[in-house]
Amino acid sequence: VKPELLPLDAAVGLLDAAVRRLDAEQIPLPEAGGRILANDIRALVPIPAEDRAAIDGFAVRAEASLGAGPYNPLALPLVAIAAGSAMPRGADAVIPLAAAEPNGPDLIAVVEPLAPGTHLERRGAVAATGALIAKAGTRLAVRHVGLIAAAGFEAVPMVRRPRVAMLLVGPRTPPLTADSNNPMLQIAVARDGGLIAGVATIPGVRSSVGAALAAAAVDIVLVVGGSGPGRDDNAAAALGETGDIIFHGVALCPGETAGFGHTANGVPVVLLPGTPAACLWSYELIAGRAIRRLAGRDPALPYRSRAVTVARKIVSAIGVTEICPILLGPDDTIEPLPGFAEIGLTAATAAAGFVLIPEAREGYPPGAVVTAYFYDDV
Amino acid sequence: VKPELLPLDAAVGLLDAAVRRLDAEQIPLPEAGGRILANDIRALVPIPAEDRAAIDGFAVRAEASLGAGPYNPLALPLVAIAAGSAMPRGADAVIPLAAAEPNGPDLIAVVEPLAPGTHLERRGAVAATGALIAKAGTRLAVRHVGLIAAAGFEAVPMVRRPRVAMLLVGPRTPPLTADSNNPMLQIAVARDGGLIAGVATIPGVRSSVGAALAAAAVDIVLVVGGSGPGRDDNAAAALGETGDIIFHGVALCPGETAGFGHTANGVPVVLLPGTPAACLWSYELIAGRAIRRLAGRDPALPYRSRAVTVARKIVSAIGVTEICPILLGPDDTIEPLPGFAEIGLTAATAAAGFVLIPEAREGYPPGAVVTAYFYDDV
Repeated sequence: VKPELLPLDAAVGLLDAAVRRLDAEQIPLPEAGGRILANDIRALVPIPAEDRAAIDGFAVRAEASLGAGPYNPLALPLVAIAAGSAMPRGADAVIPLAAAEPNGPDLIAVVEPLAPGTHLERRGAVAATGALIAKAGTRLAVRHVGLIAAAGFEAVPMVRRPRVAMLLVGPRTPPLTADSNNPMLQIAVARDGGLIAGVATIPGVRSSVGAALAAAAVDIVLVVGGSGPGRDDNAAAALGETGDIIFHGVALCPGETAGFGHTANGVPVVLLPGTPAACLWSYELIAGRAIRRLAGRDPALPYRSRAVTVARKIVSAIGVTEICPILLGPDDTIEPLPGFAEIGLTAATAAAGFVLIPEAREGYPPGAVVTAYFYDDV
Repeated sequence: VKPELLPLDAAVGLLDAAVRRLDAEQIPLPEAGGRILANDIRALVPIPAEDRAAIDGFAVRAEASLGAGPYNPLALPLVAIAAGSAMPRGADAVIPLAAAEPNGPDLIAVVEPLAPGTHLERRGAVAATGALIAKAGTRLAVRHVGLIAAAGFEAVPMVRRPRVAMLLVGPRTPPLTADSNNPMLQIAVARDGGLIAGVATIPGVRSSVGAALAAAAVDIVLVVGGSGPGRDDNAAAALGETGDIIFHGVALCPGETAGFGHTANGVPVVLLPGTPAACLWSYELIAGRAIRRLAGRDPALPYRSRAVTVARKIVSAIGVTEICPILLGPDDTIEPLPGFAEIGLTAATAAAGFVLIPEAREGYPPGAVVTAYFYDDV
């Protein structure tokens, strides 16, 4: 590791120590999908809240069926009931549709006796009042919602979505091409549970960056560009002058000039390099991690990972964590693609996924078993 | 299979034949994340659009460095440049920061000759004008956005989000407890790429359901409840009278009374049972599939699947596709949990995932290798 660069693990450790889950807000249940439960959910009412029919059929009072038989059909009132409906008052059993004959418009002929509770789902059978329905930290999915609604909730306490300000620091000379970092980061922030509170383009001079940082009233600021060495470090310099820098310079390629600190008001700030591939990876590993932590999500990379076997040698520089784009071959083998330094963001779109090669390694030989992350967008 | 029930595969086949991907709309790039590209994206401009510095350093004209050496340092103008910035006019090489000494405020001392193009990324090196940047059908993810922006796009042609109307058909007797299907379906529709265009609660009588179906000006209608047998079939009866029924009754448990058809105006309609677990599974396998198809997504269940080994016997009724909730054990073994008929929606929240047991099977013995779906919400 170059002396001025922090190992990625150390950078992540400092970030994790400084960034905590946000507080809770009440959200209407239909809008809470994909967000994180801030507190345990315990049933406010029993589930079901009343005795219900377990099948489609006819609701009866079991006692009235005593003595019924094939040669002694009893006529009972016809009360059709659908599975899941509350039992009418006085009824305590359901006769399946196939086991009774309508006998005129208002009666059925019952040919066997029923025990009370037959084909019923009893009040509280699924959950008693106070039963744990979903744990704090759960990411609310379709499968949780019905039970939470049945437990008496119309709104639920969810971790607040982090409000994110983006400051795009202009270069000294205006760029000739469109900025690609802004749309990319907006989509990444949304994916990670954040809300873009504002996007501002500011001149690449310290005073402008410093003023923008001082004014930030959000949960986290992403400063894009101006993180580089020499004259191009306006963002880092402004952060150091007006707030504090926890780290600047990470042994990560692409993404070496990433940094992290706070504004004078204590708002976390991530410095992202302006070069697109470096911006992407310092977002994924550092800024995105901070946003996922604020949102209460799993802070790890939001990609599926699994162990695979290296089919063709992977080369990497010692001393930096390198991102190597990969293709997936037969039998869960992988091989490297040309990297971000050679083909820019094409290395992300052409790849099936990527491998992180830690600082201590110069790569991997064929046959090595490594953890690969896969995009699996579909 | 009971004679009046359609095998699930046949139902899915009829659905797929009747439901097609929607047309395209232009969406600003920052809002297009997670949606499906309707057309191929080809570069409008070369990437990069101009020669760029590949590293941080000093921009020079290579020709001016000819003859430089350790004993013959040449003084060239100091033009600092950051990686990714456009080269100034006339400059065609970059000297690394470490390979040149500033020589006063305006000059650097160069101690070796450079070839033109050194540490440059040439215009068009990543992609030429017209190059394929992303294919139609791609689900737009963070990794695609930077390249699409660099290719000259501020907006992109995405498959339109299906507008979904929900009709909640009331029972003959009002229910005692809150409806849990409405919030559950809203979250499921959003997950699958749909937009809730309206939610209406209507009385469970044919004329009301028929009028609501006739008025639906959306891409798909979900009718919840009123799909059951006997007197409780108002939804199916209304659909049959005012439009057409393609199927009603599927060999699926839970979810037997699901149906599918069209309004008189040709809008697809899915009939969902009102019982929560049946509503959930007929949504996941039938209604959700239709919405995913309209949205241009992969129509398969939106859960990760893999082969696992049955550790404890799974029992199922022959003749229906049954959903069996499962727990995951050591070494990728699974065991069944009590099912939806016994513990209602708890079977979804307590499980790690589920197995679909096809109609032709009575279950699986220990040791059988089956495909399991996992929730993996986190």
